[in-house]
Amino acid sequence: MRRWNGWGEEATEVELPAHGAAFLSQRIGEGQPLHDASLAEVLAKVPPSRLPAHPLVSTDAELRVRHARGQSLPDWLAMRSGEFGRFPDGVALPQSAEQIRELLRWVAAEDICLVIYGGGTSVAGHINPPAVERPVLTLSLARMNQLLALDEQSRLATFGPGASGPQVESQLRARGYTLGHFPQSWELSTLGGWVASRSSGQQSLRYGRIEQLFAGGSLETFAGTLELPSFPASAAGPDLRELVLGSEGRFGVISQVKVRVTPLAEQERFYAVFLPDWTRALQAIRELVQARIPLSMLRLSNAVESETQLALAGHPRQIAWLEKYLAWRGAAAGKCLMTFAVTGNPAQNALSLRQTRRLLKGFGGVFTGTLLGNKWAQNRFRFPYLRHGLWQAGYCVDTLETACDWPHVDQLLQAVEHSLREGLADEGERVHVFTHLSHVYAQGSSIYTSYVYRPGGDYAQALARWQRLKHAASQAIVANHGTISHQHGVGRDHAPYLAVEKGALGMATLHSLAQHFDPQQRLLPGVLLES
Amino acid sequence: MRRWNGWGEEATEVELPAHGAAFLSQRIGEGQPLHDASLAEVLAKVPPSRLPAHPLVSTDAELRVRHARGQSLPDWLAMRSGEFGRFPDGVALPQSAEQIRELLRWVAAEDICLVIYGGGTSVAGHINPPAVERPVLTLSLARMNQLLALDEQSRLATFGPGASGPQVESQLRARGYTLGHFPQSWELSTLGGWVASRSSGQQSLRYGRIEQLFAGGSLETFAGTLELPSFPASAAGPDLRELVLGSEGRFGVISQVKVRVTPLAEQERFYAVFLPDWTRALQAIRELVQARIPLSMLRLSNAVESETQLALAGHPRQIAWLEKYLAWRGAAAGKCLMTFAVTGNPAQNALSLRQTRRLLKGFGGVFTGTLLGNKWAQNRFRFPYLRHGLWQAGYCVDTLETACDWPHVDQLLQAVEHSLREGLADEGERVHVFTHLSHVYAQGSSIYTSYVYRPGGDYAQALARWQRLKHAASQAIVANHGTISHQHGVGRDHAPYLAVEKGALGMATLHSLAQHFDPQQRLLPGVLLES
Repeated sequence: MRRWNGWGEEATEVELPAHGAAFLSQRIGEGQPLHDASLAEVLAKVPPSRLPAHPLVSTDAELRVRHARGQSLPDWLAMRSGEFGRFPDGVALPQSAEQIRELLRWVAAEDICLVIYGGGTSVAGHINPPAVERPVLTLSLARMNQLLALDEQSRLATFGPGASGPQVESQLRARGYTLGHFPQSWELSTLGGWVASRSSGQQSLRYGRIEQLFAGGSLETFAGTLELPSFPASAAGPDLRELVLGSEGRFGVISQVKVRVTPLAEQERFYAVFLPDWTRALQAIRELVQARIPLSMLRLSNAVESETQLALAGHPRQIAWLEKYLAWRGAAAGKCLMTFAVTGNPAQNALSLRQTRRLLKGFGGVFTGTLLGNKWAQNRFRFPYLRHGLWQAGYCVDTLETACDWPHVDQLLQAVEHSLREGLADEGERVHVFTHLSHVYAQGSSIYTSYVYRPGGDYAQALARWQRLKHAASQAIVANHGTISHQHGVGRDHAPYLAVEKGALGMATLHSLAQHFDPQQRLLPGVLLES
Repeated sequence: MRRWNGWGEEATEVELPAHGAAFLSQRIGEGQPLHDASLAEVLAKVPPSRLPAHPLVSTDAELRVRHARGQSLPDWLAMRSGEFGRFPDGVALPQSAEQIRELLRWVAAEDICLVIYGGGTSVAGHINPPAVERPVLTLSLARMNQLLALDEQSRLATFGPGASGPQVESQLRARGYTLGHFPQSWELSTLGGWVASRSSGQQSLRYGRIEQLFAGGSLETFAGTLELPSFPASAAGPDLRELVLGSEGRFGVISQVKVRVTPLAEQERFYAVFLPDWTRALQAIRELVQARIPLSMLRLSNAVESETQLALAGHPRQIAWLEKYLAWRGAAAGKCLMTFAVTGNPAQNALSLRQTRRLLKGFGGVFTGTLLGNKWAQNRFRFPYLRHGLWQAGYCVDTLETACDWPHVDQLLQAVEHSLREGLADEGERVHVFTHLSHVYAQGSSIYTSYVYRPGGDYAQALARWQRLKHAASQAIVANHGTISHQHGVGRDHAPYLAVEKGALGMATLHSLAQHFDPQQRLLPGVLLES
């Protein structure tokens, strides 16, 4: 069963290994475990629903608890403390576009506020019930998760919007296809959520971001249904798909999604290379992505992340041997781990591998074959589980991300890391900070930073610390040519920073679109647009 | 000097060869040349300007004539007959964004209607003065044509919006880069025009459509300036670049364009292959594009276009030899010409060529090497000049285009060709129709159809015939899952058909955006949106 107060399946536990705890303790001090509330304690706090009765709406208390929070660190602290603050007044699980339209009519008639819920994996506050006087209905798309059509000629698959990553892939793989969209939240996040928040998968280098995969579908709005027919490309005016991509539920409910799929590749290989230092690694990854070699994945950990990964990996003896070998080959302290993959036909993969190795050799890269690469691929969806292990050891972990053009990458990365590392200095607290570039482009790169800090004496302090760190990092992002999100969306947490990149007229334009689709502001008030 | 009444430079003439005229005469009858008006005749018809004086605005009659029409066939007939109908009341050639803003303030204060003019190559009526009571100012961006910045790390080039294809490429090539955007109108069309109309270049398979190349810039509107900063990718809400792409001047004036550029490739090769028949050719090209082989160009002429091209190519003796050879290899009557290119490093190009040849061999493809491929590349921008040669021989030629998903390609192509071929049957007139697929995608293909007909006794009849043909073909497009434009935009000629694909809510959304940016409807009324 899915955890009601954290990430993933209850059956899956990722613990912090002993030497991992020692590693952190040495860097930021002993862990400070806090007490977890029980589900029974939380259920006792759920107030009566303010909703009138409707056959499609459940007001079951546990269902309301399970749809009250996403996966941001503030959500985590709310769930673990049991101090949820607000709960939706009810949850609807429609099974068809017609039922969605019926619910829209009902919430309009009854003056209800609507939250749209995909996989509940938002890390930016998208799905939390807003602080409004109206009752709040959460509309979950979980039951609309089927592959509805597969056009093998055009390689287009039509899904219900609530299909999770595994539901998408298992239904496609049975027919010999893949979507190839693997965000870290893949186990729980949904196709509709990916579209609404402009998601990016780990192999976007081959398959493209969700913007490139989303070929059409339907959006149910208070102003009617927006049908998006599929064309391979069109010059017939602005592309209305782009209004749905990134709309984060503010314009309507995605009721159907058509995506571009690909036959399963003949061959896929993941490789790891160590670069001797960050300066050379950064230049190498830029030249590699700009060389247009058809890789399917390319990422680079900075020195602290590389060190942290090796420390948390378990198997300290093997790691020691590996480090000795790497040092002998010229990648000692300060080394950076680069992972890449080739996916396709063997002849193309062989050429891509050869060209990649040759290029990286020029930067002192030490190629380690598929062992660590496969390890990465096997564990690619496990990182979110580690929050639980860290929490039990008395640490809070959070991540944040941005993207910018190449000339700003290093400075932005350093500014974000500095803002976090020094963010609690006046309390005498240290923060452990590390970063990787997870999506690279000819134009620039995403920057994905993780940080670990101690919660302090209680939940209030843990949240206050997070707020200070998040604000400092967000300011560093927008002050250094970064977008406030490369792959997680805006939600509520990033909304205050959006105007820096959209500008006054851009914000007015988004407001005018929200007004057009939802004149009564019933849809997720505060998400994307602060008001 | 540029022609005032047709395509391109006066110095360039492409005549219809004698056996080409015989070929057409045999198919649709003897040509019917019409009398061309002189520039002096037209200048005599230009009425006094209704504009108040402004230092940035010229009311010179010839300038007004030269900015009155684009390159659609109705524009051609208007220019050749001298019956322009309307002229702009003046032409402004601003040199900076500040001058554009000044002009916007002025037209707002003086209640003037504005036409935005890039290269004047629209084939859909974008730049014709609208039928309104207000005076009309045409704002040409021709003087804003400079490369303003080149960021070699991020491979981003910033241009004035009025840079034409040759101006873009010459400034980039001097620095070792290319934009790689080569629409057939490349000699005259402009970067800002490409963005505004969602253009596609012949090598979009490698470089992407203008949507993929456009990284940011500025749009000057009546509601202020929309600044679009560049990010490699972003999940921060809807992408506002997409409101500029395809806006066709309805929302504002593009004053700066930032584009993604690529270092000049080490090697580029164009090849030609003949496929024995259309059925096999269509399947081959679909499988080829879906195989993800990194080709830079891929196009396929149907049997009539292949035959027409060989007939109009000149050199009948060589062509006869070629046809004998092809027939001996299995590509006789009904054969279809496929052209493709590889661009990049030699090792990758060699592998791509090998994989392409192997795949095409399975469909009976006869590979002819680089001779015909290079011929195509050399002549890629000459086709528009042929309109003049055909006109002098007494024929009208026009083209139209669409795109759809693969399951509809053949049916849509046949329906469009049929609508044209039979479009004048009740007058006893035949129409010569041929088609190629010029941009192919894993999902589907563009369809580019050319048609040649006789103008009849006078200009009125020539235009009436065009209107019947255009309407019939446009109806065939929207009735068969096609977009009303893959690469030319909507303009005025396609606006009546737009609602079929955008839907009622989509149209209302575009209207609400136009209202947001231009509440007084001063910008190109009738373009993109009929009202």
